[in-house]
Amino acid sequence: MSTQQDWIKILTDCKDNVGKAIKPHLKTLNEPQPDLGMGAGGDPMKPVDLAAEKTIVDTLQKHGISFSLISEESGFEEYGNNPKECFITIDPIDGTTNLLRGLPFYASSIAVSRKPVITEVYAALVTDLYHDTTYIAQEGTGAYRDGKRIKTSQITSLQKAVIGMDLNTYKGAEITHKITDLIQQTRHIRHYGANALELCYVANGITDAFVDIRGKLRTTDVAAGFLIIKESGGIVTGVDNQTINVKLDPKQTLKMIASGNTKIHETILGLVKP
Amino acid sequence: MSTQQDWIKILTDCKDNVGKAIKPHLKTLNEPQPDLGMGAGGDPMKPVDLAAEKTIVDTLQKHGISFSLISEESGFEEYGNNPKECFITIDPIDGTTNLLRGLPFYASSIAVSRKPVITEVYAALVTDLYHDTTYIAQEGTGAYRDGKRIKTSQITSLQKAVIGMDLNTYKGAEITHKITDLIQQTRHIRHYGANALELCYVANGITDAFVDIRGKLRTTDVAAGFLIIKESGGIVTGVDNQTINVKLDPKQTLKMIASGNTKIHETILGLVKP
Repeated sequence: MSTQQDWIKILTDCKDNVGKAIKPHLKTLNEPQPDLGMGAGGDPMKPVDLAAEKTIVDTLQKHGISFSLISEESGFEEYGNNPKECFITIDPIDGTTNLLRGLPFYASSIAVSRKPVITEVYAALVTDLYHDTTYIAQEGTGAYRDGKRIKTSQITSLQKAVIGMDLNTYKGAEITHKITDLIQQTRHIRHYGANALELCYVANGITDAFVDIRGKLRTTDVAAGFLIIKESGGIVTGVDNQTINVKLDPKQTLKMIASGNTKIHETILGLVKP
Repeated sequence: MSTQQDWIKILTDCKDNVGKAIKPHLKTLNEPQPDLGMGAGGDPMKPVDLAAEKTIVDTLQKHGISFSLISEESGFEEYGNNPKECFITIDPIDGTTNLLRGLPFYASSIAVSRKPVITEVYAALVTDLYHDTTYIAQEGTGAYRDGKRIKTSQITSLQKAVIGMDLNTYKGAEITHKITDLIQQTRHIRHYGANALELCYVANGITDAFVDIRGKLRTTDVAAGFLIIKESGGIVTGVDNQTINVKLDPKQTLKMIASGNTKIHETILGLVKP
C-alpha cells in the first residue's frame, strides 16, 4: 500500500471526506463549543477536530491500510494488522481557532512516513479547507497545488519579501533579542494562524519564508509541509542551520526557518540568533 | 447628495466597479509589475492601485458628486463644482502586496466625511475583494456585513482573544519594550496584511482587537474602518486612551488600538505602554 500512485488517491480521498465532515460544524460557529479536554498536542479539542480526525482514520481504514497514527488530538494509536508499515502524522484541523471564529484560513495536514521521524516522510497533503486548494508532495517527484507543479520564490530581499512569523505568546525576555533584527528589516510580516498552510505558501512562492523560533511549533503541524517545501525547491533548517531531524510525536516541538531560496535563508539565519 | 440612502447605493456601486476593474490585473500576478513611482502615502504604486482609484473617481462622478479626494495613491484632488461638499478618503487597494502575491486577503476602503478629519466620517465601505464580502456603516445607524447587522465580540480574556497586530518593520529599539507584554499574553496573534479589512474583522466580532502602535498606520487605511467599528459597538483610541481625531491626509499617520469591548480595551491599554 505504499506505492506513489496509491497515496495521491488515498490522501485526496481523506481531504475530500474531511471537507464533508466539517460542514455541519461550520453551521455552529456562533454557538458555545463543548469542551472535550486537551488534545495530545496540548491544545483544547473541539468537536470539529475530532470529527476531522475520525474521518481521516475511517478513510485510511476503508483503503485497507495498516498504520500508526500520530495525531495532534488523540496522540498515538495503532490500526490494522501491521501498524508499523507506515506512520500517519496528522493535524486534522490546523487553525481550529480561525475556523471557529470565521477567519477563512484553516487546513488539514496529513504526512505519511516510513518511520516516526520527520525526514522519513514520503507523501504529504495539506488542504486549505476554506478555499478548497490542495498541496500534495511525494518524495522525489515534486510538489503540486491542485495538480499543478509548484516552486518556491526566488525573492532574496527582505524589503520585497513576505515572511510568515508565528509570534503567539512568545516569551519576550527569551526571544525578543533573537528576532527583533529580522522583524525590523522585514517589510511584510504575516501570520495567518494556520502554520501547515503557511508552509505551503512558502512552497508555492506566495510567501518567501516562514519563521517560528518560539520552540512551540509541533511536528504534527509541520510534518506534511516539511516535505511539500523540500519538494518545491525550498530550504528548511533549524535556527542553527542544521537539518531538522526530529521525532514525529504530538508533544515534540521544534524551531524552524523555511525559505524559498538559499540567499534569503542565509539572510534570515544571519539576523535570527540561535 | 448626502442622504444616507444615496451613500449605500453609491459606495456599493464603487465597490462593484472596483471588483470588475481589478479582474484583468489578477491575470498578470506572476509578471513583473511596472514601477509607477511612489503614491502619496509613501508606498510604491502598482497598475492595479491606479485602476481601482480611477474606477472609484469615475463612479462618484457618474453619480454627479462634487468631492475632495484624499487618496493613498494620488493624494489630494478636487472634483466637481463644489468640491468641499464632501471629502472621500480612499485606499483603492488595501493589501496590494497580498493581491500581487496571490494571498487571498485584500480590500478597497472608502470613507465619506463632512470635513477632512477622521471623526467627521459619516459613511464608510470596506470590501473584501477576494471573498466578495462588504462592510458598510453610516453614522448613527449601525454597521452591516453584506446587509446583515454586525456587532463586536464580548471576549475579554487575552488567552481566548484573537488580536490583529501590525508589526511590519517596527523599530525594535523604540517599540519592543512597549508591546512585548501584550504579545507575551496573547494566545492568538494575527496579521493578514490588509489593515482596513482587519478593522472590519474587529467590527464583525471575528477578531477581538487590532493593535498598531508603530506610528506608521495611515488615515487612508483606517478612515472607513474607524466608523465601521464605532457603529458596530467597538472602541477605538490612541495608546494614551484618548479619542483619535486626526486629519484625513495621505501622509498623516496614527497609532491605534481598536477593541470589541471596554474590558479587553482596558487590558490592552494596561499592557501597551505609551
